[in-house]
Amino acid sequence: MSISTPLGLSSRVRSTPFTRRVEESGVSGYTVYNHMLLPTVFRSMEEDYYHLKNAVQVWDVSCERQIEITGPDASWLVQMLTPRDLSKLEIGKCFYVPMVDENGGMLNDPVLLKIAEDKYWFSIADSDLIYWIKGLAWGLNLKAKVREPDVSPLGVQGPKSAELMARIVGEEIKNLGFFRFKKFNFNSKELIIARSGYSKQGGFEIYVDDFNEGEAIWDTLFEAGQSLDVRAGCPNLIERIESGLLSFGSDMTNENTPHESGLSKFCDTRNAIKCVGRDALLKEIETGPWRQIRSLSISGAAVPPCRSAWEVRANNIYVGRVSSAAWSPDHQTNVALGMIHRDHWEPNTLVTVETPDGPREARIVSEPFNP
Amino acid sequence: MSISTPLGLSSRVRSTPFTRRVEESGVSGYTVYNHMLLPTVFRSMEEDYYHLKNAVQVWDVSCERQIEITGPDASWLVQMLTPRDLSKLEIGKCFYVPMVDENGGMLNDPVLLKIAEDKYWFSIADSDLIYWIKGLAWGLNLKAKVREPDVSPLGVQGPKSAELMARIVGEEIKNLGFFRFKKFNFNSKELIIARSGYSKQGGFEIYVDDFNEGEAIWDTLFEAGQSLDVRAGCPNLIERIESGLLSFGSDMTNENTPHESGLSKFCDTRNAIKCVGRDALLKEIETGPWRQIRSLSISGAAVPPCRSAWEVRANNIYVGRVSSAAWSPDHQTNVALGMIHRDHWEPNTLVTVETPDGPREARIVSEPFNP
Repeated sequence: MSISTPLGLSSRVRSTPFTRRVEESGVSGYTVYNHMLLPTVFRSMEEDYYHLKNAVQVWDVSCERQIEITGPDASWLVQMLTPRDLSKLEIGKCFYVPMVDENGGMLNDPVLLKIAEDKYWFSIADSDLIYWIKGLAWGLNLKAKVREPDVSPLGVQGPKSAELMARIVGEEIKNLGFFRFKKFNFNSKELIIARSGYSKQGGFEIYVDDFNEGEAIWDTLFEAGQSLDVRAGCPNLIERIESGLLSFGSDMTNENTPHESGLSKFCDTRNAIKCVGRDALLKEIETGPWRQIRSLSISGAAVPPCRSAWEVRANNIYVGRVSSAAWSPDHQTNVALGMIHRDHWEPNTLVTVETPDGPREARIVSEPFNP
Repeated sequence: MSISTPLGLSSRVRSTPFTRRVEESGVSGYTVYNHMLLPTVFRSMEEDYYHLKNAVQVWDVSCERQIEITGPDASWLVQMLTPRDLSKLEIGKCFYVPMVDENGGMLNDPVLLKIAEDKYWFSIADSDLIYWIKGLAWGLNLKAKVREPDVSPLGVQGPKSAELMARIVGEEIKNLGFFRFKKFNFNSKELIIARSGYSKQGGFEIYVDDFNEGEAIWDTLFEAGQSLDVRAGCPNLIERIESGLLSFGSDMTNENTPHESGLSKFCDTRNAIKCVGRDALLKEIETGPWRQIRSLSISGAAVPPCRSAWEVRANNIYVGRVSSAAWSPDHQTNVALGMIHRDHWEPNTLVTVETPDGPREARIVSEPFNP
């Protein structure tokens, strides 16, 4: 079993402004995300999970790198990059935007922030999206500057996150709407803070725009949050599967379209928008996707980590794959996400999942486990 | 100290055709490279190093993903992607090709294989180069198909590698020139094998073109190599620094040009080739680079792992950075690679390296430690 194989460290795997604090806080697992360290566990997956659902955690999600697009052609380019209609994207709003190639295959699923009329940030999932955007901009000879700024998001997640943030930046932050951002005064500096994050426990993301200020911002959060039992945390595998939050590269890849990934509501290809992949996506809409992401409940004891996709079968025929799975203490079952073929994706359909521990009965569920 | 922090496993970090064999062989460290597992150590960094220099190792370098370019515009596109003149690239040759963006900044440093007149493979370093190529091809409206085929390179490295390969595919392989490839009959199947690899101990790379055949090919190598003391290995940090082999993302990044990276001999921008970044590189040639990669010898006991670049100073002025470093048993010094400013890059210049253990005296050396 290689679950405890150490991660070899090198400067190719980038440290973050918060890495020293993360290690002082006792990180006990790392992954690599956008060539950068991302913690995966502190005390234990389950202890982290309960704490996230009951208190407040500070997450080093610096690996959500920003891609900044500026210049006269910025708005045109940004719309070319996603099938989502951006005409209603105002300054101060965040949009979740699937990004696809010419075949409609997913390239990333970032959050887009409109910072100014001609300035955008993509807060990205795990792929070098900047290469795609720079390639397009060069090929199309656009007047747009594309770069990775010195910005490292720091998550504050959990039911007590609003209280913690209010203690530092003022009560006003409690009125910030979901997927909205504003500048707040934090440690005597204006910082962009959004109501967002990779959990369904509520929370914020602070866009720390100076590597050297990372530790001071971290420390301020821990001083202000002491009575709230603030702890270092990270995206929690169990909670994010329960919540139906997808992981690009696991649950959907370049082999999948946004419709397969359950992201149809973020695709406005029927409108007159111009974007890469529009024709392919319009064609898919005619027939509908032939497979789609689903939540599943896998029977039996806790499954091992899903290191590579598990086959899903019905009557011994291949009908899909499970890409993420974990034992859920709250739901007392194994929660999972998988791409399931159309004939078997209806709620309550029974299927068999081929885990490394042998076949297990599983059931398609209608909605993510967490509301 | 987080040197032994485990790598959290998920399906986003891809396993390879050889992962099961790698783990049965006792891998004791992993890194993530192109979203894929890459072993970093088996017995110990030093034991692996001595064995590599004296025997033969099998390396799972599946993470050197291939990008295949085919179609009528393939040759034109491939030349656009690199400042190296490809007019002499024949079928059966491998070319090391720096790839740069419009500013001359490095994007990757792959090995290019010309498979057929209109078919190329880039065997890539750690970045999603396929995004750049697809973006360019789309923006320029080219007739070229760009995809990642099911190809996983398996390295056979070390002084006894030719003997091992000859036992399997025949004596003829001993005549294969460096950076040449040919199809050989391996396990009754034609496989592309190149004389290449990420060490200076001699060796080959087998381009395994079917995920499901990986274990059989691995097993054949171990059966044939038993009397040669064949072992599982991996790129060895000490040996590759001694040999001056660069790691993209560590030793050079998008902030660096190929001239800074010591790759001028692979840039033919003065010729009439057309490629992205040509103007920027021609401009740099006028003045020469202001910093360049150098080998260094760092005094004192073994340095800790270089997790993020160490400052290099002279008379307390910043004159560069060290990005890779390790204790070399053969040279009885710490060997290192770093980007050093022009005024301090001459051989035998003394500088100070700010390691996490404090400042150390270091010396610029004229050539890589290994010939």
